[in-house]
Amino acid sequence: MNGTSPLDRIRVVLSHTSHPGNIGAAARAMKTMGLSRLYLVAPRHFPDPEAEARASGASDLLAAAVVCRTLEQALADTVFAAGLSARRRDLSLPVCWAREGAARLVQRGRSDEVALVFGNETSGLTNEELSLCHLPVMIPTNPDYSSLNLGAAVQLMCYELRLAVAAPGAAPASELPLATGEEVEGLYAHLERCALASGFLDPSQPKRLMLRFRRLFARTALEREEVSILRGLLASFERPKLRKKS
Amino acid sequence: MNGTSPLDRIRVVLSHTSHPGNIGAAARAMKTMGLSRLYLVAPRHFPDPEAEARASGASDLLAAAVVCRTLEQALADTVFAAGLSARRRDLSLPVCWAREGAARLVQRGRSDEVALVFGNETSGLTNEELSLCHLPVMIPTNPDYSSLNLGAAVQLMCYELRLAVAAPGAAPASELPLATGEEVEGLYAHLERCALASGFLDPSQPKRLMLRFRRLFARTALEREEVSILRGLLASFERPKLRKKS
Repeated sequence: MNGTSPLDRIRVVLSHTSHPGNIGAAARAMKTMGLSRLYLVAPRHFPDPEAEARASGASDLLAAAVVCRTLEQALADTVFAAGLSARRRDLSLPVCWAREGAARLVQRGRSDEVALVFGNETSGLTNEELSLCHLPVMIPTNPDYSSLNLGAAVQLMCYELRLAVAAPGAAPASELPLATGEEVEGLYAHLERCALASGFLDPSQPKRLMLRFRRLFARTALEREEVSILRGLLASFERPKLRKKS
Repeated sequence: MNGTSPLDRIRVVLSHTSHPGNIGAAARAMKTMGLSRLYLVAPRHFPDPEAEARASGASDLLAAAVVCRTLEQALADTVFAAGLSARRRDLSLPVCWAREGAARLVQRGRSDEVALVFGNETSGLTNEELSLCHLPVMIPTNPDYSSLNLGAAVQLMCYELRLAVAAPGAAPASELPLATGEEVEGLYAHLERCALASGFLDPSQPKRLMLRFRRLFARTALEREEVSILRGLLASFERPKLRKKS
Protein backbone atom coordinates (compact mmCIF):
# COMPACT_ATOMS: atom_id res chain seq x y z
CA MET A 1 0.00 0.00 0.00
CA ASN A 2 1.29 3.49 -0.66
CA GLY A 3 0.13 6.69 0.98
CA THR A 4 -1.38 8.15 -2.15
CA SER A 5 -4.11 5.63 -2.96
CA PRO A 6 -7.68 6.88 -2.47
CA LEU A 7 -8.30 3.58 -0.66
CA ASP A 8 -6.13 4.97 2.14
CA ARG A 9 -8.46 7.95 2.55
CA ILE A 10 -11.63 5.88 2.73
CA ARG A 11 -12.56 4.80 6.22
CA VAL A 12 -15.12 2.05 6.73
CA VAL A 13 -17.38 2.95 9.65
CA LEU A 14 -19.46 0.24 11.31
CA SER A 15 -22.08 1.76 13.57
CA HIS A 16 -23.63 -0.09 16.51
CA THR A 17 -22.55 -3.52 15.34
CA SER A 18 -24.13 -6.24 17.48
CA HIS A 19 -22.01 -9.27 16.60
CA PRO A 20 -18.23 -9.07 16.94
CA GLY A 21 -17.87 -11.81 14.32
CA ASN A 22 -19.23 -9.37 11.77
CA ILE A 23 -16.55 -6.84 12.71
CA GLY A 24 -13.92 -9.48 12.00
CA ALA A 25 -15.56 -10.45 8.71
CA ALA A 26 -15.68 -6.79 7.68
CA ALA A 27 -11.97 -6.37 8.46
CA ARG A 28 -11.14 -9.39 6.34
CA ALA A 29 -13.34 -8.16 3.50
CA MET A 30 -11.69 -4.75 3.62
CA LYS A 31 -8.18 -6.13 3.59
CA THR A 32 -8.82 -8.44 0.63
CA MET A 33 -9.64 -5.31 -1.37
CA GLY A 34 -6.81 -3.16 -0.05
CA LEU A 35 -8.72 -1.00 2.44
CA SER A 36 -7.31 -0.67 5.92
CA ARG A 37 -9.02 1.99 8.01
CA LEU A 38 -11.77 0.67 10.26
CA TYR A 39 -13.87 2.86 12.58
CA LEU A 40 -16.31 1.36 15.05
CA VAL A 41 -19.13 3.39 16.57
CA ALA A 42 -20.34 1.99 19.89
CA PRO A 43 -19.80 -1.70 19.04
CA ARG A 44 -21.60 -3.99 21.47
CA HIS A 45 -18.53 -6.19 22.01
CA PHE A 46 -15.05 -5.09 21.01
CA PRO A 47 -12.34 -6.24 21.22
CA ASP A 48 -13.61 -9.79 21.16
CA PRO A 49 -12.14 -13.22 20.35
CA GLU A 50 -14.90 -13.84 17.79
CA ALA A 51 -13.86 -10.73 15.88
CA GLU A 52 -10.25 -11.96 15.87
CA ALA A 53 -11.30 -15.41 14.67
CA ARG A 54 -13.36 -14.11 11.75
CA ALA A 55 -10.73 -11.53 10.77
CA SER A 56 -8.38 -14.34 9.84
CA GLY A 57 -5.20 -12.62 8.60
CA ALA A 58 -6.69 -9.14 8.97
CA SER A 59 -6.27 -8.73 12.71
CA ASP A 60 -3.92 -5.80 12.04
CA LEU A 61 -7.00 -3.84 10.96
CA LEU A 62 -8.76 -4.70 14.22
CA ALA A 63 -5.70 -3.65 16.25
CA ALA A 64 -5.67 -0.29 14.48
CA ALA A 65 -9.47 0.21 14.57
CA VAL A 66 -10.69 3.54 15.96
CA VAL A 67 -13.56 3.16 18.42
CA CYS A 68 -15.90 6.17 18.73
CA ARG A 69 -18.91 6.89 20.87
CA THR A 70 -20.91 8.57 18.13
CA LEU A 71 -21.07 8.63 14.35
CA GLU A 72 -20.42 12.39 14.45
CA GLN A 73 -17.04 11.67 16.03
CA ALA A 74 -16.21 9.05 13.43
CA LEU A 75 -17.01 11.53 10.66
CA ALA A 76 -15.62 14.70 12.25
CA ASP A 77 -12.64 15.16 9.93
CA THR A 78 -14.28 13.78 6.77
CA VAL A 79 -15.72 15.88 3.96
CA PHE A 80 -17.96 13.23 2.42
CA ALA A 81 -19.78 10.17 3.72
CA ALA A 82 -21.79 7.51 1.92
CA GLY A 83 -24.21 5.42 3.98
CA LEU A 84 -25.55 1.99 3.09
CA SER A 85 -29.30 1.78 2.99
CA ALA A 86 -31.39 -1.28 2.28
CA ARG A 87 -34.55 0.63 1.43
CA ARG A 88 -35.93 3.95 0.26
CA ARG A 89 -36.85 6.28 3.08
CA ASP A 90 -39.05 9.32 3.46
CA LEU A 91 -37.07 12.49 3.15
CA SER A 92 -33.92 10.68 2.21
CA LEU A 93 -31.45 12.08 -0.25
CA PRO A 94 -31.43 10.73 -3.80
CA VAL A 95 -30.08 7.20 -3.60
CA CYS A 96 -27.42 5.77 -5.86
CA TRP A 97 -26.34 2.23 -6.58
CA ALA A 98 -23.19 0.63 -5.18
CA ARG A 99 -21.05 1.05 -8.28
CA GLU A 100 -21.75 4.75 -8.67
CA GLY A 101 -21.45 5.27 -4.92
CA ALA A 102 -17.99 3.68 -4.96
CA ALA A 103 -16.96 5.88 -7.87
CA ARG A 104 -18.04 8.99 -6.02
CA LEU A 105 -16.24 7.96 -2.83
CA VAL A 106 -13.05 7.31 -4.75
CA GLN A 107 -13.32 10.61 -6.59
CA ARG A 108 -13.61 12.54 -3.33
CA GLY A 109 -11.02 10.30 -1.71
CA ARG A 110 -8.40 11.41 -4.20
CA SER A 111 -7.90 14.56 -2.15
CA ASP A 112 -9.92 14.32 1.05
CA GLU A 113 -10.93 12.06 3.93
CA VAL A 114 -14.16 10.21 3.17
CA ALA A 115 -16.24 7.53 4.86
CA LEU A 116 -18.40 4.56 3.98
CA VAL A 117 -20.90 3.90 6.76
CA PHE A 118 -22.74 0.68 7.64
CA GLY A 119 -25.47 0.46 10.29
CA ASN A 120 -26.57 -2.17 12.74
CA GLU A 121 -27.06 -5.71 11.34
CA THR A 122 -30.78 -5.81 12.03
CA SER A 123 -31.98 -2.27 11.74
CA GLY A 124 -29.42 -0.66 9.42
CA LEU A 125 -28.56 2.99 9.75
CA THR A 126 -31.08 5.07 11.68
CA ASN A 127 -32.57 8.04 9.87
CA GLU A 128 -30.50 10.26 12.13
CA GLU A 129 -27.30 8.42 11.20
CA LEU A 130 -28.18 8.57 7.52
CA SER A 131 -28.76 12.31 7.85
CA LEU A 132 -25.05 12.65 8.67
CA CYS A 133 -24.19 11.12 5.29
CA HIS A 134 -24.17 12.87 1.93
CA LEU A 135 -25.06 9.90 -0.20
CA PRO A 136 -27.31 6.93 0.55
CA VAL A 137 -26.06 3.90 -1.34
CA MET A 138 -28.02 0.75 -2.14
CA ILE A 139 -26.62 -2.59 -3.26
CA PRO A 140 -28.81 -4.08 -6.00
CA THR A 141 -30.35 -7.32 -4.74
CA ASN A 142 -33.12 -9.78 -5.42
CA PRO A 143 -36.28 -7.87 -4.43
CA ASP A 144 -37.74 -11.07 -3.00
CA TYR A 145 -34.74 -11.75 -0.75
CA SER A 146 -32.43 -8.86 -0.06
CA SER A 147 -30.89 -10.35 3.09
CA LEU A 148 -27.25 -9.37 2.61
CA ASN A 149 -25.33 -9.80 5.83
CA LEU A 150 -22.98 -7.10 7.06
CA GLY A 151 -19.80 -8.86 5.97
CA ALA A 152 -21.21 -9.45 2.49
CA ALA A 153 -22.23 -5.80 2.13
CA VAL A 154 -18.77 -4.63 3.20
CA GLN A 155 -17.20 -7.12 0.79
CA LEU A 156 -19.23 -5.93 -2.18
CA MET A 157 -18.65 -2.26 -1.50
CA CYS A 158 -14.90 -2.70 -0.96
CA TYR A 159 -14.69 -4.67 -4.19
CA GLU A 160 -16.41 -1.84 -6.04
CA LEU A 161 -14.07 0.65 -4.38
CA ARG A 162 -11.04 -1.32 -5.52
CA LEU A 163 -12.32 -1.42 -9.09
CA ALA A 164 -13.27 2.25 -8.96
CA VAL A 165 -9.69 3.15 -8.07
CA ALA A 166 -8.25 1.10 -10.88
CA ALA A 167 -10.76 2.37 -13.44
CA PRO A 168 -9.44 5.50 -15.12
CA GLY A 169 -11.01 8.82 -15.88
CA ALA A 170 -12.95 10.13 -12.90
CA ALA A 171 -14.54 13.48 -13.62
CA PRO A 172 -12.50 16.41 -12.29
CA ALA A 173 -13.68 17.60 -8.91
CA SER A 174 -14.04 21.14 -7.63
CA GLU A 175 -10.76 22.60 -6.51
CA LEU A 176 -12.12 24.66 -3.63
CA PRO A 177 -11.60 23.01 -0.25
CA LEU A 178 -14.63 21.26 1.16
CA ALA A 179 -15.93 21.77 4.67
CA THR A 180 -15.22 19.04 7.21
CA GLY A 181 -18.01 17.21 9.04
CA GLU A 182 -17.18 19.24 12.14
CA GLU A 183 -17.51 22.54 10.29
CA VAL A 184 -20.83 21.50 8.81
CA GLU A 185 -22.08 20.43 12.23
CA GLY A 186 -21.09 23.87 13.50
CA LEU A 187 -23.26 25.39 10.81
CA TYR A 188 -26.24 23.23 11.76
CA ALA A 189 -25.87 24.12 15.43
CA HIS A 190 -25.67 27.80 14.53
CA LEU A 191 -28.69 27.53 12.26
CA GLU A 192 -30.71 25.76 14.95
CA ARG A 193 -29.76 28.39 17.52
CA CYS A 194 -30.82 31.22 15.25
CA ALA A 195 -34.02 29.55 14.18
CA LEU A 196 -34.95 28.93 17.80
CA ALA A 197 -34.14 32.50 18.75
CA SER A 198 -36.21 33.87 15.89
CA GLY A 199 -39.17 31.72 16.79
CA PHE A 200 -39.06 29.81 13.50
CA LEU A 201 -38.23 26.50 15.16
CA ASP A 202 -40.65 25.03 17.66
CA PRO A 203 -38.36 24.35 20.67
CA SER A 204 -40.40 21.27 21.57
CA GLN A 205 -39.98 19.77 18.08
CA PRO A 206 -36.76 21.02 16.50
CA LYS A 207 -35.72 17.69 15.01
CA ARG A 208 -37.76 17.30 11.88
CA LEU A 209 -37.05 20.71 10.50
CA MET A 210 -33.34 20.34 11.22
CA LEU A 211 -33.44 17.04 9.32
CA ARG A 212 -34.83 18.94 6.36
CA PHE A 213 -31.90 21.36 6.49
CA ARG A 214 -29.44 18.48 6.71
CA ARG A 215 -31.08 16.81 3.78
CA LEU A 216 -30.85 19.97 1.72
CA PHE A 217 -27.20 20.72 2.39
CA ALA A 218 -26.06 17.11 2.25
CA ARG A 219 -27.06 16.94 -1.40
CA THR A 220 -24.36 19.43 -2.18
CA ALA A 221 -20.89 19.13 -0.70
CA LEU A 222 -20.50 22.40 1.14
CA GLU A 223 -17.23 24.18 0.63
CA ARG A 224 -15.39 25.62 3.59
CA GLU A 225 -15.92 29.17 2.39
CA GLU A 226 -19.63 28.56 1.91
CA VAL A 227 -19.97 27.47 5.51
CA SER A 228 -18.21 30.70 6.54
CA ILE A 229 -20.55 32.76 4.41
CA LEU A 230 -23.65 31.07 5.78
CA ARG A 231 -22.46 31.47 9.35
CA GLY A 232 -21.62 35.11 8.69
CA LEU A 233 -25.15 35.60 7.42
CA LEU A 234 -26.61 33.89 10.48
CA ALA A 235 -24.41 36.00 12.77
CA SER A 236 -25.72 39.10 11.05
CA PHE A 237 -29.24 38.03 11.92
CA GLU A 238 -28.20 37.68 15.53
CA ARG A 239 -27.15 41.35 15.83
CA PRO A 240 -30.31 43.31 16.62
CA LYS A 241 -28.50 46.65 16.59
CA LEU A 242 -27.89 46.47 12.86
CA ARG A 243 -31.43 45.57 11.95
CA LYS A 244 -33.65 47.91 9.99
CA LYS A 245 -37.31 47.71 9.27
CA SER A 246 -37.67 45.65 6.15
CA MET B 1 -38.46 -15.42 -10.73
CA ASN B 2 -39.46 -16.22 -14.28
CA GLY B 3 -38.05 -18.99 -16.43
CA THR B 4 -36.45 -16.74 -19.02
CA SER B 5 -33.76 -14.98 -16.95
CA PRO B 6 -30.20 -16.06 -17.70
CA LEU B 7 -29.76 -16.28 -13.92
CA ASP B 8 -31.99 -19.36 -14.07
CA ARG B 9 -29.62 -21.05 -16.49
CA ILE B 10 -26.51 -20.44 -14.39
CA ARG B 11 -25.77 -23.13 -11.86
CA VAL B 12 -23.34 -22.51 -9.03
CA VAL B 13 -21.17 -25.59 -8.47
CA LEU B 14 -19.28 -25.99 -5.20
CA SER B 15 -16.70 -28.74 -5.48
CA HIS B 16 -15.33 -30.63 -2.46
CA THR B 17 -16.49 -28.08 0.08
CA SER B 18 -15.08 -28.87 3.54
CA HIS B 19 -17.25 -26.70 5.78
CA PRO B 20 -21.03 -26.99 5.56
CA GLY B 21 -21.38 -23.43 6.88
CA ASN B 22 -19.82 -22.24 3.64
CA ILE B 23 -22.47 -24.10 1.65
CA GLY B 24 -25.14 -22.26 3.59
CA ALA B 25 -23.37 -18.92 3.12
CA ALA B 26 -23.10 -19.58 -0.61
CA ALA B 27 -26.82 -20.36 -0.84
CA ARG B 28 -27.66 -17.12 0.94
CA ALA B 29 -25.29 -15.15 -1.29
CA MET B 30 -26.84 -16.69 -4.42
CA LYS B 31 -30.38 -15.95 -3.35
CA THR B 32 -29.67 -12.31 -2.50
CA MET B 33 -28.68 -11.86 -6.14
CA GLY B 34 -31.49 -13.91 -7.65
CA LEU B 35 -29.63 -17.14 -8.44
CA SER B 36 -31.19 -20.38 -7.31
CA ARG B 37 -29.51 -23.47 -8.71
CA LEU B 38 -26.89 -25.00 -6.42
CA TYR B 39 -24.84 -28.10 -7.29
CA LEU B 40 -22.57 -29.77 -4.76
CA VAL B 41 -19.74 -32.08 -5.80
CA ALA B 42 -18.73 -34.49 -3.03
CA PRO B 43 -19.36 -32.15 -0.10
CA ARG B 44 -17.74 -33.39 3.09
CA HIS B 45 -20.90 -32.82 5.17
CA PHE B 46 -24.30 -32.32 3.58
CA PRO B 47 -27.06 -31.91 4.58
CA ASP B 48 -25.90 -30.35 7.82
CA PRO B 49 -27.43 -28.08 10.48
CA GLU B 50 -24.57 -25.60 10.08
CA ALA B 51 -25.43 -25.20 6.39
CA GLU B 52 -29.06 -24.55 7.32
CA ALA B 53 -28.07 -22.01 9.94
CA ARG B 54 -25.83 -20.01 7.61
CA ALA B 55 -28.34 -20.17 4.75
CA SER B 56 -30.72 -18.03 6.78
CA GLY B 57 -33.79 -17.57 4.54
CA ALA B 58 -32.22 -19.45 1.62
CA SER B 59 -32.80 -22.99 2.85
CA ASP B 60 -35.03 -23.59 -0.17
CA LEU B 61 -31.84 -23.56 -2.28
CA LEU B 62 -30.28 -26.18 0.00
CA ALA B 63 -33.37 -28.35 -0.23
CA ALA B 64 -33.22 -28.20 -4.03
CA ALA B 65 -29.43 -28.64 -4.26
CA VAL B 66 -28.18 -31.37 -6.61
CA VAL B 67 -25.43 -33.50 -5.07
CA CYS B 68 -22.99 -35.15 -7.52
CA ARG B 69 -20.03 -37.44 -7.10
CA THR B 70 -17.83 -35.74 -9.68
CA LEU B 71 -17.52 -32.37 -11.38
CA GLU B 72 -18.05 -34.08 -14.75
CA GLN B 73 -21.52 -35.10 -13.59
CA ALA B 74 -22.32 -31.59 -12.36
CA LEU B 75 -21.35 -30.16 -15.75
CA ALA B 76 -22.75 -32.93 -17.95
CA ASP B 77 -25.59 -30.93 -19.52
CA THR B 78 -23.84 -27.55 -19.62
CA VAL B 79 -22.27 -25.91 -22.68
CA PHE B 80 -19.99 -23.50 -20.85
CA ALA B 81 -18.31 -23.42 -17.44
CA ALA B 82 -16.29 -20.70 -15.72
CA GLY B 83 -14.03 -21.75 -12.83
CA LEU B 84 -12.78 -19.49 -10.05
CA SER B 85 -9.05 -19.39 -9.67
CA ALA B 86 -7.08 -17.48 -7.07
CA ARG B 87 -3.83 -17.57 -9.00
CA ARG B 88 -2.31 -17.90 -12.44
CA ARG B 89 -1.41 -21.44 -13.28
CA ASP B 90 0.96 -23.07 -15.69
CA LEU B 91 -0.75 -24.22 -18.84
CA SER B 92 -4.05 -22.62 -17.88
CA LEU B 93 -6.32 -20.93 -20.38
CA PRO B 94 -6.25 -17.15 -20.62
CA VAL B 95 -7.75 -15.81 -17.40
CA CYS B 96 -10.37 -13.09 -17.21
CA TRP B 97 -11.53 -10.86 -14.38
CA ALA B 98 -14.77 -11.36 -12.51
CA ARG B 99 -16.75 -8.68 -14.31
CA GLU B 100 -15.92 -9.95 -17.77
CA GLY B 101 -16.39 -13.54 -16.65
CA ALA B 102 -19.88 -12.72 -15.41
CA ALA B 103 -20.71 -11.01 -18.69
CA ARG B 104 -19.62 -14.07 -20.66
CA LEU B 105 -21.59 -16.46 -18.45
CA VAL B 106 -24.70 -14.34 -18.84
CA GLN B 107 -24.23 -14.11 -22.58
CA ARG B 108 -24.06 -17.91 -22.89
CA GLY B 109 -26.81 -18.29 -20.31
CA ARG B 110 -29.28 -16.45 -22.51
CA SER B 111 -29.76 -19.62 -24.49
CA ASP B 112 -27.90 -22.47 -22.81
CA GLU B 113 -27.10 -24.13 -19.50
CA VAL B 114 -23.90 -22.76 -17.99
CA ALA B 115 -21.96 -23.21 -14.74
CA LEU B 116 -19.84 -21.20 -12.34
CA VAL B 117 -17.51 -23.51 -10.41
CA PHE B 118 -15.81 -22.95 -7.04
CA GLY B 119 -13.21 -25.31 -5.57
CA ASN B 120 -12.30 -26.41 -2.08
CA GLU B 121 -11.87 -23.65 0.54
CA THR B 122 -8.18 -24.33 1.10
CA SER B 123 -6.83 -25.63 -2.17
CA GLY B 124 -9.24 -24.15 -4.73
CA LEU B 125 -10.00 -26.00 -7.95
CA THR B 126 -7.50 -28.69 -8.86
CA ASN B 127 -5.81 -28.40 -12.24
CA GLU B 128 -7.92 -31.32 -13.36
CA GLU B 129 -11.13 -29.61 -12.27
CA LEU B 130 -10.09 -26.37 -13.94
CA SER B 131 -9.39 -28.29 -17.15
CA LEU B 132 -13.12 -29.10 -17.29
CA CYS B 133 -13.91 -25.37 -17.40
CA HIS B 134 -13.78 -23.08 -20.43
CA LEU B 135 -12.85 -19.91 -18.64
CA PRO B 136 -10.71 -19.39 -15.54
CA VAL B 137 -11.98 -16.33 -13.67
CA MET B 138 -10.11 -14.31 -11.08
CA ILE B 139 -11.56 -11.83 -8.61
CA PRO B 140 -9.30 -8.77 -8.31
CA THR B 141 -7.90 -8.56 -4.79
CA ASN B 142 -5.15 -6.98 -2.74
CA PRO B 143 -1.99 -8.79 -3.89
CA ASP B 144 -0.70 -8.78 -0.31
CA TYR B 145 -3.82 -10.42 1.11
CA SER B 146 -6.09 -12.21 -1.31
CA SER B 147 -7.82 -14.36 1.30
CA LEU B 148 -11.42 -14.27 0.05
CA ASN B 149 -13.48 -16.90 1.74
CA LEU B 150 -15.81 -19.10 -0.28
CA GLY B 151 -18.99 -17.28 0.70
CA ALA B 152 -17.42 -13.92 -0.21
CA ALA B 153 -16.28 -15.20 -3.60
CA VAL B 154 -19.75 -16.57 -4.36
CA GLN B 155 -21.29 -13.28 -3.22
CA LEU B 156 -19.07 -11.16 -5.48
CA MET B 157 -19.57 -13.36 -8.53
CA CYS B 158 -23.34 -13.54 -8.07
CA TYR B 159 -23.45 -9.74 -7.68
CA GLU B 160 -21.57 -9.35 -10.96
CA LEU B 161 -23.92 -11.85 -12.60
CA ARG B 162 -26.95 -9.90 -11.43
CA LEU B 163 -25.51 -6.65 -12.81
CA ALA B 164 -24.46 -8.37 -16.04
CA VAL B 165 -28.05 -9.48 -16.65
CA ALA B 166 -29.46 -6.02 -16.22
CA ALA B 167 -28.17 -2.69 -15.10
CA PRO B 168 -30.29 -1.95 -12.06
CA GLY B 169 -31.88 1.05 -13.76
CA ALA B 170 -32.16 4.49 -12.34
CA ALA B 171 -31.81 4.56 -8.59
CA PRO B 172 -35.09 5.37 -6.91
CA ALA B 173 -35.60 9.12 -7.07
CA SER B 174 -37.07 11.47 -4.58
CA GLU B 175 -40.78 11.98 -5.15
CA LEU B 176 -40.98 15.45 -3.68
CA PRO B 177 -41.72 18.21 -6.23
CA LEU B 178 -38.90 20.52 -7.18
CA ALA B 179 -39.10 24.29 -6.97
CA THR B 180 -39.61 26.24 -10.19
CA GLY B 181 -37.11 28.83 -11.37
CA GLU B 182 -39.52 31.55 -10.29
CA GLU B 183 -39.78 30.14 -6.78
CA VAL B 184 -36.02 29.91 -6.50
CA GLU B 185 -35.65 33.50 -7.73
CA GLY B 186 -38.15 34.54 -5.07
CA LEU B 187 -35.91 32.91 -2.51
CA TYR B 188 -32.83 34.76 -3.77
CA ALA B 189 -34.66 38.09 -3.69
CA HIS B 190 -35.87 37.41 -0.18
CA LEU B 191 -32.39 36.37 0.92
CA GLU B 192 -30.84 39.50 -0.56
CA ARG B 193 -33.43 41.72 1.13
CA CYS B 194 -32.79 40.12 4.51
CA ALA B 195 -29.03 40.19 4.16
CA LEU B 196 -29.13 43.88 3.24
CA ALA B 197 -31.43 44.63 6.18
CA SER B 198 -29.20 42.78 8.60
CA GLY B 199 -26.10 44.56 7.37
CA PHE B 200 -24.47 41.36 6.12
CA LEU B 201 -24.55 42.47 2.50
CA ASP B 202 -22.72 45.60 1.44
CA PRO B 203 -25.43 47.58 -0.41
CA SER B 204 -22.84 48.98 -2.81
CA GLN B 205 -21.55 45.51 -3.74
CA PRO B 206 -24.30 42.94 -3.28
CA LYS B 207 -23.58 40.94 -6.41
CA ARG B 208 -20.63 38.77 -5.54
CA LEU B 209 -22.09 37.32 -2.38
CA MET B 210 -25.40 36.65 -4.07
CA LEU B 211 -23.50 34.78 -6.77
CA ARG B 212 -22.01 32.60 -4.07
CA PHE B 213 -25.49 31.76 -2.79
CA ARG B 214 -26.66 30.95 -6.29
CA ARG B 215 -23.65 28.74 -6.79
CA LEU B 216 -24.40 26.87 -3.58
CA PHE B 217 -28.08 26.24 -4.20
CA ALA B 218 -27.65 25.53 -7.90
CA ARG B 219 -25.61 22.43 -7.03
CA THR B 220 -28.62 20.94 -5.34
CA ALA B 221 -32.06 20.87 -6.91
CA LEU B 222 -34.16 22.70 -4.36
CA GLU B 223 -37.54 21.20 -3.62
CA ARG B 224 -40.61 23.39 -3.42
CA GLU B 225 -41.05 22.68 0.27
CA GLU B 226 -37.42 23.52 0.97
CA VAL B 227 -37.87 26.94 -0.60
CA SER B 228 -40.90 27.47 1.65
CA ILE B 229 -38.93 26.44 4.71
CA LEU B 230 -36.02 28.73 3.85
CA ARG B 231 -38.35 31.65 3.20
CA GLY B 232 -40.18 30.95 6.45
CA LEU B 233 -36.85 31.07 8.23
CA LEU B 234 -35.93 34.35 6.57
CA ALA B 235 -39.33 35.82 7.43
CA SER B 236 -38.77 34.83 11.04
CA PHE B 237 -35.55 36.84 11.02
CA GLU B 238 -37.50 39.84 9.71
CA ARG B 239 -39.84 39.96 12.69
CA PRO B 240 -38.10 42.04 15.38
CA LYS B 241 -40.89 41.52 17.89
CA LEU B 242 -40.20 37.81 18.22
CA ARG B 243 -36.46 38.18 18.64
CA LYS B 244 -34.79 37.29 21.87
CA LYS B 245 -31.30 38.02 22.99
CA SER B 246 -29.15 35.27 21.56
